[in-house]
Amino acid sequence: MITSATILTAHARIRPYIHRTPVMTSAGMDQLAGGSLFFKCENFQKVGAFKARGAMNAVLQLTPEQRAAGVATHSSGNHAQAIARSAKLLGIRAYIVMPRTAPAVKKRGVEGFGGEIFECEPTLEARESMLRDVIARTGATEIHPFNNYDVMAGQATAALELYQEITDLDIVIAPVGGGGLLSGTSMATRYFSPRTAVLAAEPAGADDAYRSMLSGQPEVSQANSIADGLLTSLGDKTFPIVRENVQQIITVTDEEIVQAMRQVWEKMKIIIEPSSAVPVAAVLKAGDVFRGKRTGIILSGGNVDLERALQLFQAGR
Amino acid sequence: MITSATILTAHARIRPYIHRTPVMTSAGMDQLAGGSLFFKCENFQKVGAFKARGAMNAVLQLTPEQRAAGVATHSSGNHAQAIARSAKLLGIRAYIVMPRTAPAVKKRGVEGFGGEIFECEPTLEARESMLRDVIARTGATEIHPFNNYDVMAGQATAALELYQEITDLDIVIAPVGGGGLLSGTSMATRYFSPRTAVLAAEPAGADDAYRSMLSGQPEVSQANSIADGLLTSLGDKTFPIVRENVQQIITVTDEEIVQAMRQVWEKMKIIIEPSSAVPVAAVLKAGDVFRGKRTGIILSGGNVDLERALQLFQAGR
Repeated sequence: MITSATILTAHARIRPYIHRTPVMTSAGMDQLAGGSLFFKCENFQKVGAFKARGAMNAVLQLTPEQRAAGVATHSSGNHAQAIARSAKLLGIRAYIVMPRTAPAVKKRGVEGFGGEIFECEPTLEARESMLRDVIARTGATEIHPFNNYDVMAGQATAALELYQEITDLDIVIAPVGGGGLLSGTSMATRYFSPRTAVLAAEPAGADDAYRSMLSGQPEVSQANSIADGLLTSLGDKTFPIVRENVQQIITVTDEEIVQAMRQVWEKMKIIIEPSSAVPVAAVLKAGDVFRGKRTGIILSGGNVDLERALQLFQAGR
Repeated sequence: MITSATILTAHARIRPYIHRTPVMTSAGMDQLAGGSLFFKCENFQKVGAFKARGAMNAVLQLTPEQRAAGVATHSSGNHAQAIARSAKLLGIRAYIVMPRTAPAVKKRGVEGFGGEIFECEPTLEARESMLRDVIARTGATEIHPFNNYDVMAGQATAALELYQEITDLDIVIAPVGGGGLLSGTSMATRYFSPRTAVLAAEPAGADDAYRSMLSGQPEVSQANSIADGLLTSLGDKTFPIVRENVQQIITVTDEEIVQAMRQVWEKMKIIIEPSSAVPVAAVLKAGDVFRGKRTGIILSGGNVDLERALQLFQAGR
């Protein structure tokens, strides 16, 4: 479904609309990990997250008729901003269903791009039900946050850029929520860095992907973690790709996530959101896996309420 | 005193020991400023601040006899870490006099590089008195944080790198405390980007440089600001350079500093310390000066206690 040409074409398509983000290194983080880490900084991406890639790739492929009716999605935050921004760039309307618990900074982001927000309860059922209503009313095209091949191909371009810059990676590790970034990362790795092992990191409080890998079929889990971007479960399009291409999923606790986030803020002087800290926490936790290795880490985003983050740090002391 | 060759030689000398830091841009910050901003990110520098440059340039020029006796300095923080790190890299001892009010993160930094800390009261008299004692006891060479041409030439290399990357800047703005960074920046500008106007930004609570420019002679001021790296006054070596080369000094309040710091954290996803936010605050405050212009901003460092930053953001709401 997603070929190397799909990813390269997506990259050419979205390139005028996204940042080529830097790959950062840190002697302090390398020392903690006992290996060489290469951070793909999607926290510096447009809208502050990799989601700008997939959303742009999907919206750019709509027909004129589809554009006229607008786009719709449900999202806990970064995808919502990304859809709103993509729609604004093309002059079309965006209808965004968001859980009422989404961080204020992410809601402000959507509003800043002119997206129309519909708040709902923070459950998958409530999101999907409200989205159906909105689409019935507007005729908008749904752009799913992850269970969509155009979105996955767009997310794959982050790892593509990483491999264009850094060669000979032993491991690449990405966070997993719905699996869009992880699927894209794994397909990019297959085509552009086939010697690199694909690992994933997941919050222990939302470990459906970990359980699904163990049982070989889609599993559900609770969705309870500070990593608010990773509370969704794998979809029917992402699960097979993850199962086939991902070697290992490492789960981490909220406490480990906060500690990893603090290390990155203090040592690298960059702001990452809790979801971005999940793969960092996995690297610091599963030391033996990464020691002496060259590991690429996809830092997925940087959208976090500052007061909230600093409260987490205080509580983590 | 400081020629173009001095700066280029300093750059070649320290290059193996420092980061070439990135120059970042931000559509969000440009929008706030109404002009094009180019941020030289010395918050990503070794020890988290530009001070790594000047300290390394000075320590590398010590004689073998001087190296044997070690180095000493007094500093509120970043220079202290920079001296300790430079000394460690060359295998020599570092004696650091620090005010007891220096941020804990900066003290931990000095200790992490094996520097020996001597705490004193947070006054210039107390610092100088204790430093004299330490030097009398050890025979160490003092490396002053700013009133030293080798240190200034090292600091000049940040602006040199900026001009190697970004041309046609209308303005460059740096924070001013003792004037080491500002002197270096102004000399680099004279030689490598002579069309660029040199401006400075200073906390209103420690505005000795602003007053000195007005009166034409060294003035003293209170030293009361959250920008803890900028509480010192110009020295007899930095004052003449500043007076000759700096067109304007803009003062900003602590409230303006906190607001600017928050904007940079939120919009750029990078961590800067209050002293770094001073020139950003000046750009946002004196809008007419910068509107429609291309301005380089030296972000001097990123060493801030995260809990302290939280308190500042909360109080600034």
